[in-house]
Amino acid sequence: MLMTQQADIGLIGLAVMGQNLVLNMTDHGFKVAVYNRSREKTDEFLAAEPDNENLLGCFSIEELISSLAAPRKIMLMVKAGEVVDLFIEQLLPYLDEGDIIIDGGNSLYTDSQRRTDYLAEKGIQFIGTGVSGGEEGARYGPSIMPGGNVAAWASVKPIFQAIAAKADDAPCCDWVGDGGAGHYVKMVHNGIEYGDMQLIAESYHLMRYGLGLSADECQTVFAEWNTGLLDSYLIEITAEILKFKDEDGAPLVDKILDAAGQKGTGKWTGISSLELGIPVTLITESVYSRCLSALKDERIKAQAHFGEIPPTPAMSEQEKAEMLQAIHDALYASKIISYAQGYMLMREAAKEFSWQLNYGGIALMWRGGCIIRSTFLGEIKNAYEANPELSNLLLADFFSNALQKSAANWRKAVIFAIQRQIPTPALSSALTFFDGYKSATLPANMIQAQRDYFGAHTYERIDAPRGTFFHTDWIQSGGRVSSTTYEV
Amino acid sequence: MLMTQQADIGLIGLAVMGQNLVLNMTDHGFKVAVYNRSREKTDEFLAAEPDNENLLGCFSIEELISSLAAPRKIMLMVKAGEVVDLFIEQLLPYLDEGDIIIDGGNSLYTDSQRRTDYLAEKGIQFIGTGVSGGEEGARYGPSIMPGGNVAAWASVKPIFQAIAAKADDAPCCDWVGDGGAGHYVKMVHNGIEYGDMQLIAESYHLMRYGLGLSADECQTVFAEWNTGLLDSYLIEITAEILKFKDEDGAPLVDKILDAAGQKGTGKWTGISSLELGIPVTLITESVYSRCLSALKDERIKAQAHFGEIPPTPAMSEQEKAEMLQAIHDALYASKIISYAQGYMLMREAAKEFSWQLNYGGIALMWRGGCIIRSTFLGEIKNAYEANPELSNLLLADFFSNALQKSAANWRKAVIFAIQRQIPTPALSSALTFFDGYKSATLPANMIQAQRDYFGAHTYERIDAPRGTFFHTDWIQSGGRVSSTTYEV
Repeated sequence: MLMTQQADIGLIGLAVMGQNLVLNMTDHGFKVAVYNRSREKTDEFLAAEPDNENLLGCFSIEELISSLAAPRKIMLMVKAGEVVDLFIEQLLPYLDEGDIIIDGGNSLYTDSQRRTDYLAEKGIQFIGTGVSGGEEGARYGPSIMPGGNVAAWASVKPIFQAIAAKADDAPCCDWVGDGGAGHYVKMVHNGIEYGDMQLIAESYHLMRYGLGLSADECQTVFAEWNTGLLDSYLIEITAEILKFKDEDGAPLVDKILDAAGQKGTGKWTGISSLELGIPVTLITESVYSRCLSALKDERIKAQAHFGEIPPTPAMSEQEKAEMLQAIHDALYASKIISYAQGYMLMREAAKEFSWQLNYGGIALMWRGGCIIRSTFLGEIKNAYEANPELSNLLLADFFSNALQKSAANWRKAVIFAIQRQIPTPALSSALTFFDGYKSATLPANMIQAQRDYFGAHTYERIDAPRGTFFHTDWIQSGGRVSSTTYEV
Repeated sequence: MLMTQQADIGLIGLAVMGQNLVLNMTDHGFKVAVYNRSREKTDEFLAAEPDNENLLGCFSIEELISSLAAPRKIMLMVKAGEVVDLFIEQLLPYLDEGDIIIDGGNSLYTDSQRRTDYLAEKGIQFIGTGVSGGEEGARYGPSIMPGGNVAAWASVKPIFQAIAAKADDAPCCDWVGDGGAGHYVKMVHNGIEYGDMQLIAESYHLMRYGLGLSADECQTVFAEWNTGLLDSYLIEITAEILKFKDEDGAPLVDKILDAAGQKGTGKWTGISSLELGIPVTLITESVYSRCLSALKDERIKAQAHFGEIPPTPAMSEQEKAEMLQAIHDALYASKIISYAQGYMLMREAAKEFSWQLNYGGIALMWRGGCIIRSTFLGEIKNAYEANPELSNLLLADFFSNALQKSAANWRKAVIFAIQRQIPTPALSSALTFFDGYKSATLPANMIQAQRDYFGAHTYERIDAPRGTFFHTDWIQSGGRVSSTTYEV
């Protein structure tokens, strides 16, 4: 250990992500002091990196703190939740005013908001940052989305921007906003990731069970898609996965149980969208799809009860090729809807929490390094650069043209799925959202009439100024005034 | 005022629902002491009921309390939230051990849970109860869903069961469960109400804009549907609404702005379903549909941008009649899905919060009095009576037969909507859920493979026992062990 020199940053928590972030930092010439609750992990890590001169192992919080240059920067890479608070309390006695605590876990944005305020009172600066990119990203360049106390940013920026992925030579890391803004944007990123994965899964399902393609044939399709509009990390690894053979030579994917986990950020995105009243239908349907997948035993029982779906009717190669193109277009159009919904949510959150979000900047941060990285995000960045006041992504030329061009095939793919009894909740939900979004008239007038009928909730009229409320005595009973107590 | 006699119950909060509940109680021979924060409302109420000998007006909390027989029962019909807590604090100094506070507002179930515990510590019994049925229900027989401290039930039961609606001679009111159980069941009721209303709105939309029917023609259809399987209060009032003419003779519904409110219980149902991991897709899509409806200005802009949908191609009367039947069947089947999802949610909540819910009893409570009352609920009650251990409503003969019978027409109606570009998020979401539910195999294996690929999240295999987790080094890099820190 080189205790003669002071470290640039300390990192607590040496699980895979923590270790890889440390190595990424030391690669870039930063001296990093590391600490882990169980001593063995630190020993192992140091033993695996005998020649890394930028690495300082520490075996107590006190030792870690004393090895850091001022203002001290300590990054937590520990389990989100209470553990973060416990470490903060352990750190506090050793810190001086202006020192910086960074939480790089998948924390809930309200926790980061709370921690920013709590630590600010004590003169400690806090950064809550999203880090995306999985193990590989952490090691060679993640997407980093920091928020919290902006006063801390200047000290942390050189390290974060050095280790972040680069897209078009720009770092996939920039200041997001106050308090919980960084973790909020990371949460939406993860929600979008849920959506992207579900869209790919549904497309794959349509190919395998609707068109009767083999895993190898699907692999070819995804590999080809990865060279076009859908070029993205998730499409790329889907092709890789389909290629991977189990020990018996069969595709490994066929051996994997179809029951997916869903705790955490996807769920939070759905909850936040309900709280803020923004229709983020695709992400929520994707979360629900994972919930349904988890009911494996019940689904087996239900299939036995309702019977298997009829076999695919024969299709010509030409018909199959056309349907593959339709699925492609459905996936692409649905992806546009999903990102537009995610941006609608961030816009509303920014209003609610008084954040100044740079929407083009967020697209750039996601452009490289992270799980949802894609060429597609370059187009979002372009759209917001061309018009920073863009009210909705769907109205940007590039995306509305893409939707117009895809619409017929999108409908074709969803109708095919419905006819074949293959569930495509995300592709379908995206389509009904699109049709609703571009409908100047929706049947919510009937809902308002019903609410006024049974609960005297009042309604507005198309021929009166907004904010003028009317009540009708629908059954002509001479009933009482409108309701103010109940909300349905 | 007849202060010589003690009142059976006190009620605080004389908005429409409170007043009507009081009159319902006095009709049934109960003596009710009433209090309202603003004296004028009490004065007006008493003035409107000069001959009501069961009514006692009170002008302070102290006076209200002193007019009640022991154990005192005080029902709050005030705005849900903080106001309830404020009144509880005002009441406490005057109460004796064993007295009962009842909250009849649309409170969040976690608040009722908290209040039950808080008051139990002080020797005060608490009931948090859902009351549904709107103004008319409150006046002539609501559905009442009480939960909280079961020790209070015997004292309150005679009053509640007397004033509740009756279905097949049984009161639509029975004890639901501990703590927040009553308000939880009321919340799910309201969520289902959101779903029912959205399904009717979508069906109406398809008739008006897909089939080109007039409001009067739609009225005839809904009135006819109300004599069959769909016989229900909401279908009935839909027909009534369609009949109602504005001053100029045009249907009033056409003058009502299509922007619906969505705060409260529908949103809470969605949030709870995400927290518990139960795919309550239809209710959540219904909440989101209200959110989208509220973006009226943006939708007008979007329609101008994307263009109006093409006019309906000519259809023969025969084709129209067949499509109306398809819409009917789609509505009916989707309604089955929605209730099944609501029951799945209650089942999971009962597990989570250790409630003993009587599922048939809940259907009976909803069978009359409340907004979602219908003959349909009689079938749910029958299904749970026939098999109290029924794992899912969809597997009960009556409902699975109904789904099988409706399926082809359901698909037809949704495909028609997609082709006509008319948004039917609830009808579509219900169908994709059905197709997913009866799929023994879903493509979540791809999602699990992706998660293991980028985050080393591990997966289970179809050929290994559940609970055994595998990790594959997909890129054959010799990478590290599986991740435990990150959840995506």
